[in-house]
Amino acid sequence: MDPVNIIGVGMTKFGVLDDSILDLAQQAAFQAIDDSSTTEVPFEYLAVGVQNPDEFVGRGHFSTLLADTLGIVPAGAIRVETGPSSGSSAFESAFALIASGMADLVLVVGVEKMSEVDRGVASKILAKMMSYENETRYGATPAALAAMITRRYMHDYGLTRNELSLLPVKAHRNGAKNPLAHFRKEITVETVNNSRIVADPLTLFDCCPTSDGAASIVVASDRIVKKYGLLDRTIRVAGIGHGTDYLAVQHRLALTSMNATVTAAQRAFKMADVQPRDVGVCELHDAFSILELIDMEDVGLVERGTAIDAVKAGNTEVSGDMPVNPSGGLKARGHPTGATGVAQIRDIVLQLRGEAPKGLQVDNPRYGLTQNIGGFGNNMVVAIFSSL
Amino acid sequence: MDPVNIIGVGMTKFGVLDDSILDLAQQAAFQAIDDSSTTEVPFEYLAVGVQNPDEFVGRGHFSTLLADTLGIVPAGAIRVETGPSSGSSAFESAFALIASGMADLVLVVGVEKMSEVDRGVASKILAKMMSYENETRYGATPAALAAMITRRYMHDYGLTRNELSLLPVKAHRNGAKNPLAHFRKEITVETVNNSRIVADPLTLFDCCPTSDGAASIVVASDRIVKKYGLLDRTIRVAGIGHGTDYLAVQHRLALTSMNATVTAAQRAFKMADVQPRDVGVCELHDAFSILELIDMEDVGLVERGTAIDAVKAGNTEVSGDMPVNPSGGLKARGHPTGATGVAQIRDIVLQLRGEAPKGLQVDNPRYGLTQNIGGFGNNMVVAIFSSL
Repeated sequence: MDPVNIIGVGMTKFGVLDDSILDLAQQAAFQAIDDSSTTEVPFEYLAVGVQNPDEFVGRGHFSTLLADTLGIVPAGAIRVETGPSSGSSAFESAFALIASGMADLVLVVGVEKMSEVDRGVASKILAKMMSYENETRYGATPAALAAMITRRYMHDYGLTRNELSLLPVKAHRNGAKNPLAHFRKEITVETVNNSRIVADPLTLFDCCPTSDGAASIVVASDRIVKKYGLLDRTIRVAGIGHGTDYLAVQHRLALTSMNATVTAAQRAFKMADVQPRDVGVCELHDAFSILELIDMEDVGLVERGTAIDAVKAGNTEVSGDMPVNPSGGLKARGHPTGATGVAQIRDIVLQLRGEAPKGLQVDNPRYGLTQNIGGFGNNMVVAIFSSL
Repeated sequence: MDPVNIIGVGMTKFGVLDDSILDLAQQAAFQAIDDSSTTEVPFEYLAVGVQNPDEFVGRGHFSTLLADTLGIVPAGAIRVETGPSSGSSAFESAFALIASGMADLVLVVGVEKMSEVDRGVASKILAKMMSYENETRYGATPAALAAMITRRYMHDYGLTRNELSLLPVKAHRNGAKNPLAHFRKEITVETVNNSRIVADPLTLFDCCPTSDGAASIVVASDRIVKKYGLLDRTIRVAGIGHGTDYLAVQHRLALTSMNATVTAAQRAFKMADVQPRDVGVCELHDAFSILELIDMEDVGLVERGTAIDAVKAGNTEVSGDMPVNPSGGLKARGHPTGATGVAQIRDIVLQLRGEAPKGLQVDNPRYGLTQNIGGFGNNMVVAIFSSL
């Protein structure tokens, strides 16, 4: 397997934005290309992660549309879609193209523009990620499923409402320092506890927003890295893994663990040949507060049912020994679905380069990890990164 | 690059069918799995090519939905979308996963169910493959663009209406012998000439149908082929290439050649290290009559402007020395968009195994080729296959 590297990253502001989906994709891609110092090398492929441009903005055939817009024709172009893990899946496709020797230089773009449709339409589009037969037809929503999982986790492990609220508080504390985050305001446990109930026991502040935004990565072979003398700022992709689980939550082995993450993480750690304890910084998919705890356990950072202890001890803070979501995570950085996985990787790359925003830089991490959820917990990609 | 093999294929009937999109995908996949003799080996990945299940049938998150339906969870699952070349692009992703060593066994499914929406809605969905700014807003349709290209080709190379009609006549002659084809009736030049005008000079019989259907392929590493003693019926993927062109036809260098095919073919031939003259059978994307001629020239089978001479000489017949579309092609086999690329590969695999339907088997071809068009001529995949 040829080594795979990241030599450039870019990202737009996340939030409710005026820019079109193509504007956003272009801004992130041009930043990543500029950052890569390889502007004269033609891209052989473009891999786009986008969940549903057809229904969110009425744009189809997004792979060619974007290759044309970015001026990288005749690069082979694909769109990869796995729900909210589409960005990570597009990155995985780029990884395979480089690892196989099929390409030396691949551009990855993750993007979503979710604010053009009203909230009801957006909810209907997003509901397609769940099982129609087993969930949607009975009125289940992502928040309702997250609420049931939260209740079960509270029952099994004694998690309290006040403890759970520490998660969004940390997310907002970090997001406040991230210039590209959707939300940049600190909040308190009381803010979370007293905001309106979305699905009992979850309040508004337990749920990530729907956002607009884009992120981009330039992925390259060792040939490119050596040819352009990029060794000092190249990040190596140490491992990547992908796993699915049954579409419907009720069909799964457990409510408080997501087997697709376990599968993806095991595969990624095996490829990287490192252990969870080697991870110095990670970006996990915290679409709901409870997920950050479950993700930590599924990835193997902590024992089952103990994630909240690490949070309470401050271990998951930027200054802790196991920093989780220094970017602010999906909760505060925002969640333009197709962009999220690419943004997670971009943020880990900046961490490993020592270029994270002021107040968010983790002290000299050796390995970084991303975990991205597709569907409601059924299509996950985990990737592990290191400095060269 | 690890060698990549095809060890199983499956396909449903193409046509206007009662089965749901999941029924179709499942039938094709189970056939391919049965055909591969590897039912006890877990798939590591599923790559689904499907153009627009969200709008054609209201189904989203298709990668997990299908992994779950097929019972191959926790395989990593992705949906790859490049318009009507989605099936070939999904196959390309599977190729990369095996070639990189990331996986030993990958299931590819291409599927589309286009008949649930009425014709007007289907046209709107398909129109998104074109440039809104440059084409759709001015009333252009795929048939209108094909008609302009046909006129230009007639002007440049002296092609006549009667000559053009030979293409659908051949397609239907072959389709009549293909038990899974959408259309199984022979037609004459008069049928084509006298059918209603769709976009002058194209008549109804110059245009492929919209179809329902699915096809599936099991892609495997040499480790699997050796472990299960499958050498005698394994088909090797000799090369694959992918190329794009500008989204809008008016932006391209020429009307009568599609540069994305030229790019994809050059890359595929380079990887396979063979020449166009080595191709003994091919399946080309003849969504409109004129495209079969242009495809032959772009792939390099004949000189520019001379494809019709090969057709008139009988060279492209099943019994000729350069058989094109023995399946009946998109015109007669049908065109369920996401399924087409996978069906083309399945048909070439059967040809190379010597298992094509009665009357359609080409005499002992050494190499087979597929060419699949995405958008209106802007996202192409070419692949080359051989016996071991």
